[in-house]
Amino acid sequence: MYGTVLHGPGDIRYERVEDPKILKPTDALIKLSATCICGSDLWPYRGISSREGPMHMGHEYCGTVVEVGSEVRTVRPGQFVVGSFCLSDNTCPHCRFGFQSSCVQREFMSGAQAPYARVPLADGTLVATDEVPDADMIPHMLAASDVLGTGWYGAVAANVREGGTVVVVGDGAVGLMGVMAASQLGAGRIIAMSRHASRQALARKFGATDIVAERGEDGIARIMDLTGGVGAESVIEAVGMAESMQQAQGICRPGGTIGFVGVPHGVTFDGQQLFFRQQRMMGGPAPVRRFLPDLMTRVLAGRIQPGKVFDLTLPIDQVAEGYRAMDERRAIKTMLRVEG
Amino acid sequence: MYGTVLHGPGDIRYERVEDPKILKPTDALIKLSATCICGSDLWPYRGISSREGPMHMGHEYCGTVVEVGSEVRTVRPGQFVVGSFCLSDNTCPHCRFGFQSSCVQREFMSGAQAPYARVPLADGTLVATDEVPDADMIPHMLAASDVLGTGWYGAVAANVREGGTVVVVGDGAVGLMGVMAASQLGAGRIIAMSRHASRQALARKFGATDIVAERGEDGIARIMDLTGGVGAESVIEAVGMAESMQQAQGICRPGGTIGFVGVPHGVTFDGQQLFFRQQRMMGGPAPVRRFLPDLMTRVLAGRIQPGKVFDLTLPIDQVAEGYRAMDERRAIKTMLRVEG
Repeated sequence: MYGTVLHGPGDIRYERVEDPKILKPTDALIKLSATCICGSDLWPYRGISSREGPMHMGHEYCGTVVEVGSEVRTVRPGQFVVGSFCLSDNTCPHCRFGFQSSCVQREFMSGAQAPYARVPLADGTLVATDEVPDADMIPHMLAASDVLGTGWYGAVAANVREGGTVVVVGDGAVGLMGVMAASQLGAGRIIAMSRHASRQALARKFGATDIVAERGEDGIARIMDLTGGVGAESVIEAVGMAESMQQAQGICRPGGTIGFVGVPHGVTFDGQQLFFRQQRMMGGPAPVRRFLPDLMTRVLAGRIQPGKVFDLTLPIDQVAEGYRAMDERRAIKTMLRVEG
Repeated sequence: MYGTVLHGPGDIRYERVEDPKILKPTDALIKLSATCICGSDLWPYRGISSREGPMHMGHEYCGTVVEVGSEVRTVRPGQFVVGSFCLSDNTCPHCRFGFQSSCVQREFMSGAQAPYARVPLADGTLVATDEVPDADMIPHMLAASDVLGTGWYGAVAANVREGGTVVVVGDGAVGLMGVMAASQLGAGRIIAMSRHASRQALARKFGATDIVAERGEDGIARIMDLTGGVGAESVIEAVGMAESMQQAQGICRPGGTIGFVGVPHGVTFDGQQLFFRQQRMMGGPAPVRRFLPDLMTRVLAGRIQPGKVFDLTLPIDQVAEGYRAMDERRAIKTMLRVEG
């Protein structure tokens, strides 16, 4: 088959790769309904976090099971499934504690920007629906695999509570999903920080009550002004840069919580500063598997439409343009159509 | 009167100072029943955190009100009171959120290693008892002012829950009070890290179920062994050094929480490491005022005897020996008797 391979910074190719197959008895093979490009794919694309050798890209996926290994018990061929970008057994102590993204057997999904993919630890990773959903549900189900699940975790990690005040730092796809999550979790006020009209509009659609376009010290001043000088109880940091983290720290009230879900790049903390700011910090790769059944139920019930975060859809053989569009911020998030 | 003044590293003197007096209408003057030396007093004593000029030492106190300013409403002369080392108005949004140690009017208490002291923001800071307690209650009431309150906050910040597994890093007075707090909060297993027989014994008396004498990698391996390879759900870091923080991070399970109450010195965190460890972090100066009424009730009911943490009692004019004993770790914590 063909698949998406990153050969070096900016050099992404849809090219012939080996067909995926069952390698372990706990694997499943799925035929993808659709896949997409993640903000975190841009780190190696931009050469910021580089690895040796070509990388098989793609970790967000939903689709139909075509084959399972001999030990797989909870999914079977023909079923529609969604899985997390973190592969987990869902039985170890960390999984049972709700942190499947720290599973003792954890692997990270790869190679899903392709028509078929191998999913290790299928029983612990995949969640099947009762019926194969309609085609118009696919973008929303796909979003649950990572971007919605990560935004959701950001909100949970930030201790979003009913009636509370939440600030979302970052208007990328994860930040926008953080807005949606905060809204679903009953936040009373959701302030989205965004300078881009199209993203501001989407943030409002997802539940933002206020938009702050300023950044840095001005952004902090504006949020403090909006919160009567107190700051926000919950802050979702969805970028991962030093500037965005400083923003988050500058607007979180003492005793409040920062949920940080952007993989930090060049971010360090001084212990004494962290101490005296007295803000709770919780980050990490999202344990999407914890939330997946609930998120899929919300999607299927029509309560949320997270797939609206995809503002560009391309056939998968144009994946390179999908990366370029996101890199140049022409697109928030690119969905890739997988043909026959 | 006489008071305790630090003139430079190691140079602590009990010498003539100005009599404290009411400076603002919100002040109270108290006659101390007893006072004590804090682990944090040792930082400037050791020259690690130095300030310009002589420092009037002492921030842990209980005693009898002798005079109040014209605006003080909640305490009156003759009442026995305990106050926090953090002075707070207890009415601002941060106070009402339970973080009096980040009060918008916050000041830190000073000058309490003396027979009399001025307490600013008396209404928000002091908690009075119904009756003047017996003399044998004084050490326990005094402990509530900081060391117990700080250990308690460490346990709360570390999300100690009924039946949970807690590790306390640091066998100083605050760590030992963290053990007591974890026990009172219903922890199922409390592992105290300590190499000193006398402190181990006290830890057991306060509720520790296990003692780990190893440190560093060996200490981490021992805790992992004791927790079936999982790590602890709650870790109280009560030291503030890079080594102790690494210890805490090495033994906290993913999704677990580190409550850090030792003021960090030379501690930094790498953002990406913090992210992938996926441990909740909450620190800061303890909002003792939040816990004070409850702690005083527990003391007066005889449910806890935190004053047992004082293993050296000296008349206040021997305060210099009290510092030396703690500096040389001959004493866990020194109480200072204040004579008529």
